Amino acid sequence: MAELLAALRQAVGQPNVLTRATHGDLSAWENDWRKRWPGHARAVVRPGNTEEVAAVVKACTQHGVALVPQGGNTGLVGGSGPDGTGTQVVLSLQRMHRVRGLDAANATLTVEAGCVLQAVQQAARDAGFLFPLSLAAEGSCTIGGNLATNAGGTQVLRFGNARDLCLGIEAVTASGEVVNLLSGLRKDNTGYDLRNLLVGSEGTLGIITAATLKLFPLPAAQLTAWVAVPSMAAAVSLLGTAQRLLGPALTGFEVMNAFSLSLVARHMPQLTQPLAAHADPWRVLLEVQDVESEAHAQARLEAVFEVAMANGCASDAAVAQSVAQSRHFWHLRESIPLAQAEEGTNIKHDISLPVSAIPAFVEATDAALAQAIEGVRLVNFGHLGDGNLHYNVQAPPGVSAAEFLAAQEAVANAIVYQAVAQHGGSISAEHGVGWLKRDELPHYKDATALAWMRQIKRALDPANLLNPGRVLRTD
Amino acid sequence: MAELLAALRQAVGQPNVLTRATHGDLSAWENDWRKRWPGHARAVVRPGNTEEVAAVVKACTQHGVALVPQGGNTGLVGGSGPDGTGTQVVLSLQRMHRVRGLDAANATLTVEAGCVLQAVQQAARDAGFLFPLSLAAEGSCTIGGNLATNAGGTQVLRFGNARDLCLGIEAVTASGEVVNLLSGLRKDNTGYDLRNLLVGSEGTLGIITAATLKLFPLPAAQLTAWVAVPSMAAAVSLLGTAQRLLGPALTGFEVMNAFSLSLVARHMPQLTQPLAAHADPWRVLLEVQDVESEAHAQARLEAVFEVAMANGCASDAAVAQSVAQSRHFWHLRESIPLAQAEEGTNIKHDISLPVSAIPAFVEATDAALAQAIEGVRLVNFGHLGDGNLHYNVQAPPGVSAAEFLAAQEAVANAIVYQAVAQHGGSISAEHGVGWLKRDELPHYKDATALAWMRQIKRALDPANLLNPGRVLRTD
Repeated sequence: MAELLAALRQAVGQPNVLTRATHGDLSAWENDWRKRWPGHARAVVRPGNTEEVAAVVKACTQHGVALVPQGGNTGLVGGSGPDGTGTQVVLSLQRMHRVRGLDAANATLTVEAGCVLQAVQQAARDAGFLFPLSLAAEGSCTIGGNLATNAGGTQVLRFGNARDLCLGIEAVTASGEVVNLLSGLRKDNTGYDLRNLLVGSEGTLGIITAATLKLFPLPAAQLTAWVAVPSMAAAVSLLGTAQRLLGPALTGFEVMNAFSLSLVARHMPQLTQPLAAHADPWRVLLEVQDVESEAHAQARLEAVFEVAMANGCASDAAVAQSVAQSRHFWHLRESIPLAQAEEGTNIKHDISLPVSAIPAFVEATDAALAQAIEGVRLVNFGHLGDGNLHYNVQAPPGVSAAEFLAAQEAVANAIVYQAVAQHGGSISAEHGVGWLKRDELPHYKDATALAWMRQIKRALDPANLLNPGRVLRTD
Repeated sequence: MAELLAALRQAVGQPNVLTRATHGDLSAWENDWRKRWPGHARAVVRPGNTEEVAAVVKACTQHGVALVPQGGNTGLVGGSGPDGTGTQVVLSLQRMHRVRGLDAANATLTVEAGCVLQAVQQAARDAGFLFPLSLAAEGSCTIGGNLATNAGGTQVLRFGNARDLCLGIEAVTASGEVVNLLSGLRKDNTGYDLRNLLVGSEGTLGIITAATLKLFPLPAAQLTAWVAVPSMAAAVSLLGTAQRLLGPALTGFEVMNAFSLSLVARHMPQLTQPLAAHADPWRVLLEVQDVESEAHAQARLEAVFEVAMANGCASDAAVAQSVAQSRHFWHLRESIPLAQAEEGTNIKHDISLPVSAIPAFVEATDAALAQAIEGVRLVNFGHLGDGNLHYNVQAPPGVSAAEFLAAQEAVANAIVYQAVAQHGGSISAEHGVGWLKRDELPHYKDATALAWMRQIKRALDPANLLNPGRVLRTD
């Protein structure tokens, strides 16, 4: 132990090896923010560059000590904190937040893993570009964590997931070597796709230290609309119409049920809601980016609403009249996670389905849950354009959240995940597997695919020292 | 041998096991179309479905016999034919050409690996959708081969490479198991990205048997322009202007030097060239797809030319006035590979670079080649929007192609690939590695990345029976 700490101090400098003995409270690194998986670290190590990351990994490998890579520690599946044994070292990338370079003619940006997402967005904007990855935690999550978990968010419909925004990657392997695939190339067919293997591997195959990201021209205008929609089937139909008429100008398509917005109304009464009195049980937030002008965007959006109102897939629409109002629409949407937390912890499901299967899934699963759990309430919202729902199960009125979770989590998970499987979906759309879904995975993932995953893990991390036990059971 | 053949006949039926003894000439499967790597197969096996593929793999594994998966056999790097030993079995996917299903509301199409690319495009079009993968061999290449090699082509700028168009995949492993990851999901974070590991692995990790592909709405209008451009730097600047003003409506951006078009003029004199007399040494083919109308596309294109003419990055432009003329522009561009072949086999380089590095790369490499090989001629054309050049080195006038290749191939490759490396590029942009570049790879690819590739190959194909010796040296 003392020997390991000495080696770590040698690698990153004394002030960057934190222990309870020297620094007291380490809970910011040891606990996830929802405090579902409180942990206990042997030490928190904060390397300042890639060579230091490699040195830390070599020291840990030499001592047979497991490493947990950590970015902003904002994950939702227990992927970035130590277990409770006090033996694991947390490797925090937060000191590695340099922008290494921006290539305007190539529209690429190279950043270190510890850059906060918002800082990446800002670096792009400062140079006249858009970096479109956007999600609720963007003020504190890091790009390394975004890539390690293949984060999704609100712009996937147009720009793809984190993996689609990454052209090149740098990582440290389990043996402390540096893999340098930091290119800004749109095409590169020189062998296996190691970049995409690292992206989404949740720190279990290598530690992402830097990435070269794709940038896009800033749009000339952006419009946001709030639409009242009579049913989920109508929302899917509205999506099709918008995709056909707007093409890639359609950049966001979020759906929210009445109950999720009623929680926002209850817990954030100061937030006024457009179309608040409308009887339709669903709302859609639709975003358009336009390369020409606001007037052009407005005209295109009106063309969509004309068709949608005529064929009954939208009942009414409010278009934000200012940037402030547009932000307010998004703020309403993004307040749902907080509002539901105020109501009491619920049972979360981050699921995806073929868009075509969503209406049938929602109808069947709503009914099955209502039958299994009397009075159950469903917070159903998400990125409909990507087929991604946050389909969360809230306790009946008057039932305590703790009691509800203890009694119903297994029941609700079984109903939801079996319905997801029946409808050709995935039990983890954008949050990853981590600890939360590791033991569910074998019930829903192709067995041969899982066997491949285990073989790859063993090949690249034979001593099982990188984020052990996440994604795959390795004990 | 007899035992293996019996097992193969059992697996796929007697008529689908072809040998010289029973079928005579097998050269269509044994030789690549450029006849650079003539081979000799033990047998050609033509399974009709995924289960039969699995049975063939099991039979070969049991007998320790290597398999070479083959689609349309149109590759350019020696990836899809048997070696000369007569021991390898060619597994042809061509009988597997079913369209398994089209999901309009989800905008996805599921096809078997042996579907010819053009048939996939047509199946999409018949349902009112665009499947944008497009390349010269589309009339005979198969979607399985496109995915196995991560094919590029002319629409990558907007829609990405083959990997970006694939949502789900089905494959048979080296042990004859089926990996079923055939989902139509836009988001799925349930573990390692095995789909992208298979895509681009050139049949060395598994045999792709089917895929679920992304579809897009058909555009309302498509316009093609032919532009005279004074320099490569000006072409890069025109690209930036077009991207800023057109955004995702810019779907193609091809560049051609004067020499490549002079070969088309010489060998295909019946093909009239727009702006033929213009003195500028470069031409750009620019394509726009518009969700609104032809008039709108025209107006946007004019806005681009206005800026480009004013800042000197374009000198003159002709816009195709009909679908036929637009096809003619593309036909001119696509005639370059054939015209250069008429002139005599040359030394091909399928390279990619950061777009920003291309002008300096071309200037330096043109000069270095001119100095090293007196009178050398350069066929320089490609997908500038993706940073992908086909930078081919043609014999000086009067020098025979065979003599030139024998004397200069190593010299030219060394000059070009070293310059590519110096400018942050890749020695294989869209054609893959196969046999052609396997032994070049270790000189230019990150050593740790190559070590990972070897570890993955060993983990997933421990007996080295899937397309052995391609991509990686495994003997």
